[in-house]
Amino acid sequence: MYKVACLPGDGIGPEIISAGRKVLDAAGERFGFDIEWDEYDVGAERYISTGQLISEDELKELSNYRAIYFGAIGDDRVTPGVLEKGILLAVRFYFDQYINLRPVKLLKGVETPLANKKPEDIDFVVVRENTEDFYVGIGSRVKSGVTKNELKVVRDLYSVKFGLDVETDADELAYQIGVLSKKGSERVIRYAFDLAEKRSKKLASVDKANVLTDVYGLWREVFNDVSKNYPDVSTEFNFVDAVTMWFVKNPEWYDVLVTPNMFGDIITDLGAMIQGGLGLAPGGNINPDGTSMFEPIHGSAPKYKGKNIANPLATIWAGSMLLDHLGENEAAAAVLSSIEHSIEERAVTRDMKGNLKTSDVGEWIAEDLLKG
Amino acid sequence: MYKVACLPGDGIGPEIISAGRKVLDAAGERFGFDIEWDEYDVGAERYISTGQLISEDELKELSNYRAIYFGAIGDDRVTPGVLEKGILLAVRFYFDQYINLRPVKLLKGVETPLANKKPEDIDFVVVRENTEDFYVGIGSRVKSGVTKNELKVVRDLYSVKFGLDVETDADELAYQIGVLSKKGSERVIRYAFDLAEKRSKKLASVDKANVLTDVYGLWREVFNDVSKNYPDVSTEFNFVDAVTMWFVKNPEWYDVLVTPNMFGDIITDLGAMIQGGLGLAPGGNINPDGTSMFEPIHGSAPKYKGKNIANPLATIWAGSMLLDHLGENEAAAAVLSSIEHSIEERAVTRDMKGNLKTSDVGEWIAEDLLKG
Ligand SMILES: CC(C)[C@H](C(=O)O)[C@@H](O)C(=O)O
Ligand SMILES: CC(C)[C@H](C(=O)O)[C@@H](O)C(=O)O
Repeated sequence: MYKVACLPGDGIGPEIISAGRKVLDAAGERFGFDIEWDEYDVGAERYISTGQLISEDELKELSNYRAIYFGAIGDDRVTPGVLEKGILLAVRFYFDQYINLRPVKLLKGVETPLANKKPEDIDFVVVRENTEDFYVGIGSRVKSGVTKNELKVVRDLYSVKFGLDVETDADELAYQIGVLSKKGSERVIRYAFDLAEKRSKKLASVDKANVLTDVYGLWREVFNDVSKNYPDVSTEFNFVDAVTMWFVKNPEWYDVLVTPNMFGDIITDLGAMIQGGLGLAPGGNINPDGTSMFEPIHGSAPKYKGKNIANPLATIWAGSMLLDHLGENEAAAAVLSSIEHSIEERAVTRDMKGNLKTSDVGEWIAEDLLKG
Repeated sequence: MYKVACLPGDGIGPEIISAGRKVLDAAGERFGFDIEWDEYDVGAERYISTGQLISEDELKELSNYRAIYFGAIGDDRVTPGVLEKGILLAVRFYFDQYINLRPVKLLKGVETPLANKKPEDIDFVVVRENTEDFYVGIGSRVKSGVTKNELKVVRDLYSVKFGLDVETDADELAYQIGVLSKKGSERVIRYAFDLAEKRSKKLASVDKANVLTDVYGLWREVFNDVSKNYPDVSTEFNFVDAVTMWFVKNPEWYDVLVTPNMFGDIITDLGAMIQGGLGLAPGGNINPDGTSMFEPIHGSAPKYKGKNIANPLATIWAGSMLLDHLGENEAAAAVLSSIEHSIEERAVTRDMKGNLKTSDVGEWIAEDLLKG
């Protein structure tokens, strides 16, 4: 018996999570475990009506769970960043979910927008650092910044450049600080090396150390140090701009990649597209010793809300990752294979050229699972 | 008669620049102007033997030119960042080349890695800000940083998080600061709106304002302000992660995009790939009132150095942009159409399935131009 917290969120969130729960319940029935679902109401509606995002008390409660099943958040009525930072990133940071694991795998029968690429060409995993980098949320207008008196170098630069007087024109400048730590880099890089050892012993590090030399210089230093413990893993450094090219041209070059937070965000969306689109891309936010969270990597798609047409496969796949995390590896594999089965049988939503509704897909896969 | 400075640089740089010069000279012959080329030696060799990158005196001299023709820099023997920051970014910053203009256009006859996309689907321009953002080069280990005593908020965060003591463990943290100014954002956004007015009156802004709320919040504020002066241009905000998807899935949605420096770097490499690869992607670093620089956006490809096999088309196309910048619009258009002609006739290098050498392609296009 597992207790799993469930945060459906906004837009299509509740519909896809409901399909996902149905599948995980069926997996439990077949493999002999029960899931008790505890639902938490977070998202735009609550924020708009009460001003609340997620409370400290709720976060404390959530720490009683090993896994959270997360739908999606985001709503056009709310300023960009408020819900993302106040809920999604808040959970990632609060539980120190330092690994964001994103498989990029073209399932059989799925159409990729790339010419001449087959399932065997697109099968890699991006290990995205999930708690540092430019996601630390430190920044400001220079005027009101915590570091107002300190960013002397910035102010000098800009007073030469534009004749700005920092006392009167300080609202004119904004800065954003990214931070990387050796410890924070090491733990995620180590995780990626361990994963590479289990797969094809190839690991690519993605950064932009030729321009953002300070943070990504540290990253490379740590990567080189950690690599000494894995002499059998072959490694390479790639610049993020180049990686976007190779994902499109030669995805078969990659097996495991590890990357700081922001570039991880960008390349995994691209990865999602080459594996057939956001409807098919799951992610796990993992703290191996704490509370982890599993989610589709797509957003809340407000315009499809309530229509029962959203593709639930990313969410169901995220559910498979959740089961894996709980140690139910057989059940996890069975869920993934029922997803593949649903694709083969065209038991999918219309974005994948099927004619099922969101809930139908959940039911189809649940039944398929129970057939065994 | 024009004086153009020419910086061939490292690796394949000299070969592609030499092909490009041949073409621009031919364009001059046909359209009645002369180019006097002044060559500057910058790059890895000089740096390794003398420690010099580019001197203040050279930069002053270069300010006598309206245009610089740049090859490529980069060499495996030099730490990533040294040549890039010390030469390429130094020029961009010194001359305040705040517009990095990157056409993404699938020429007829060129193969794209995207399934089912045709030349009419891929034809847009990315206007990349080129002097701000995370390219300002401000960062450090906390230990030795200019802002050592000031990054209190960072230190507090990390002392809670990892129990780091900033006095003893300061080498453990690195930070990087990005800066955006209203003036710096406004001028490039204005340029992009002007360009959109001349094209299809559609402009997309690319940022990540839902996470890097400080810098990109300012960017959006400025974008909204500037947009008021262009009521006939329809606009939208896109997140950078999503843009990488749409480039691959629906490039036909885009016409003009404007974006801060770092995301511009990333999405234009992806753009280069969908237009057929780096061998075909030119860029202009433009200061409308000063010295501008034109270059292929690819690197120095050290392993192809001296082999006369590198594809010179990106460099020749950059030459066409250079002519445009000098006001030789007819000549610029003729160069681009001779490039297209060479592709049609398969008078290209082997990466494009032709069998010409780098220098042959230059000669072929020069002759084609002269035929008129
Ligand atoms: C919604 C947003 C904050 C988030 C991110 O940037 O991490 C999303 O894009 C993702 O990749 O999970
Ligand atoms: C070489 C590097 C510094 C440069 C950049 O990041 O701007 C390059 O990638 C480019 O896009 O021109």
